[in-house]
Amino acid sequence: MIYLNQDFTVTPWEVKGEVDYNKLIIDFGIKPLSEDILNRLRKHVGRLHYMLRRKIFFAHRDLDWLLDMYERGENFILYTGRGPSGHTHLGHMIPWIFTKWIQEKFNAKLYFQITDDEKFLFKHKLTLETVKKYSYENILDIIAIGFDPDKTYIFLDTEYSKTLYPLAIRFAKHITFSTARAVFGFKESNNIGQIFFTSMQAVPAILESVKQGKNVPCLIPLAVDQDPHFRVARDIYPKLGFYKPAIIHGKFLPGLGRGGKMSSSIPETCIFTIDKPKDVRRKIMNAFTGGRPTKEEQRKYGGNPLICPVYQYFYFLIEKNDEKMRKIFDECRNGERLCGECKRELAEKMVKFLLDHQKKRENAKDMIERFMLRD
Amino acid sequence: MIYLNQDFTVTPWEVKGEVDYNKLIIDFGIKPLSEDILNRLRKHVGRLHYMLRRKIFFAHRDLDWLLDMYERGENFILYTGRGPSGHTHLGHMIPWIFTKWIQEKFNAKLYFQITDDEKFLFKHKLTLETVKKYSYENILDIIAIGFDPDKTYIFLDTEYSKTLYPLAIRFAKHITFSTARAVFGFKESNNIGQIFFTSMQAVPAILESVKQGKNVPCLIPLAVDQDPHFRVARDIYPKLGFYKPAIIHGKFLPGLGRGGKMSSSIPETCIFTIDKPKDVRRKIMNAFTGGRPTKEEQRKYGGNPLICPVYQYFYFLIEKNDEKMRKIFDECRNGERLCGECKRELAEKMVKFLLDHQKKRENAKDMIERFMLRD
Repeated sequence: MIYLNQDFTVTPWEVKGEVDYNKLIIDFGIKPLSEDILNRLRKHVGRLHYMLRRKIFFAHRDLDWLLDMYERGENFILYTGRGPSGHTHLGHMIPWIFTKWIQEKFNAKLYFQITDDEKFLFKHKLTLETVKKYSYENILDIIAIGFDPDKTYIFLDTEYSKTLYPLAIRFAKHITFSTARAVFGFKESNNIGQIFFTSMQAVPAILESVKQGKNVPCLIPLAVDQDPHFRVARDIYPKLGFYKPAIIHGKFLPGLGRGGKMSSSIPETCIFTIDKPKDVRRKIMNAFTGGRPTKEEQRKYGGNPLICPVYQYFYFLIEKNDEKMRKIFDECRNGERLCGECKRELAEKMVKFLLDHQKKRENAKDMIERFMLRD
Repeated sequence: MIYLNQDFTVTPWEVKGEVDYNKLIIDFGIKPLSEDILNRLRKHVGRLHYMLRRKIFFAHRDLDWLLDMYERGENFILYTGRGPSGHTHLGHMIPWIFTKWIQEKFNAKLYFQITDDEKFLFKHKLTLETVKKYSYENILDIIAIGFDPDKTYIFLDTEYSKTLYPLAIRFAKHITFSTARAVFGFKESNNIGQIFFTSMQAVPAILESVKQGKNVPCLIPLAVDQDPHFRVARDIYPKLGFYKPAIIHGKFLPGLGRGGKMSSSIPETCIFTIDKPKDVRRKIMNAFTGGRPTKEEQRKYGGNPLICPVYQYFYFLIEKNDEKMRKIFDECRNGERLCGECKRELAEKMVKFLLDHQKKRENAKDMIERFMLRD
């Protein structure tokens, strides 16, 4: 089932409109992260990551099973990915930051798939050479997040296809065209590489099991639009003798415009990790907000942080302290905080965040080979 | 367009019934090997191979272009393949024997693809492990044919997929589901690996060009059922900057039963390269023939060699001398040759042929690594 309605669209290749996450939970058949399961997690990690406290990661599949296994002494591995169709923007980093935290807390190995084949196959104008160039640009951002170089394995599908392709066809044999079409909405005009691709995305969850020659549980943190791949693949893992991977689903960082997730296709509403301070400032100062048309009205009636991307950037990325976050919310609601000063505050904190990231990104250039898996 | 009618079927995955090759030429849109083109070939090779003299190789695509190129000094490479779904039978060897002759006459490099992925994806019951086992069994037969170890590169798709997959997706991007379905007749129940597979079969024709960084012409000798793959792919090579490969099409060795090509699925009508003499003799002695019900009628009216598999085995494989072949034909037609003696003659010659092949096959065991391409 693909998710299409009048208000919003969530597929692995398109996210449009204002996403209703409660509706997604029902329609995708995933489970909300309940207090019970968060409490179980808390037992193992101490204080929860702000993305869990704030329900930025909001749903899951089989996380309870994963914790059962963990509590019985079975360590799990992590698997996440990136489709390298352009430069990294802040929205891409949300699941990576969260994944890094889980890696740290559970001392988990991480398989990080760069789906250069996917982006080549799905983006009409992209050559494989361009996608490969973006792949290595993106890998700098991934490394800059701070993943453990001894436990993190990054690979491009095309560079690791001697390992991946023979495993992918094991999945492919169990996926009929009929199923793939129902889930992804393929049409007559889709190319045959696109139709096959989901098999490649299934594989990394079993790489550690194949390597160890025994079943190793796997947790996949992902933005919720990638869930359909695993809705298909999860039925197949047991047929091949593997555990179904558990999944934890994240929300989308909104763009700086009105509604929808951050998207590279509208660069002005989108902050890239390589943006210069002046561009970051300009984009933020031009952002849509939840504020009133005039200063006076703002003072009198307050703004609406819930529809405000500026607020969301504090919430998703910049302000990790819940009390301070609450304060921003209250100040906005009661008219104490004006949009101009709020934007300036975000812009300066964002510039600082990015300059720091860019330094780490520069250092990452010498570390690439420590992370890469190639055949 | 797939080829289905009431009398016979020819697709890459199924050949059934008595094939009308003239109809295939029209329906596949291929060209018969004319006397003109055979004369051009003769200029370069001297005496033509018996498979050309007898029109066992009977049709082509762009062979005239290939000869133009060759006459201008551009050497071509050869590409052929094998789908390793079981042990090699005599039918499989026909195009290999012919390919070996071309290699010798034109001093051509040969890329030999073993499509273990295809057979795994298309044969419900075959595991990848079994297909791989057959692959290496089949490779012994291929080497036994006598290919030049310095100019012949044999590879399994799964073992060479780091090279093949990134090139395959370049083809896949240009093949819509709509085209693949029209040509191969895919249904809702086909798996997504089957749908993708034709992209993998397109690649070997460009391997030498990729390696040399310049366009190298390619000739593909194949049994005519494999033509649909290239009907699709040939449109794409120029889009990727490569020459369209030329193709030369072979007929099917019939089974020992009544009608249809030799097929492993009916083992009693099929001679395998590893068959023991007593099995070869039994299978041939039990073969269907074009003879009359009684010795007396045979003497009086003669037999019909054209519908006789015993005759065909002389024609395709055992009797390379055209005069002797003519004599067998005449003796059969005029009633001098009785089926029993004809079968015994074939059986003894076949046993000799196979014992010789089996010796070479045994020697091939030490040579495998000289031939294999792996990533």
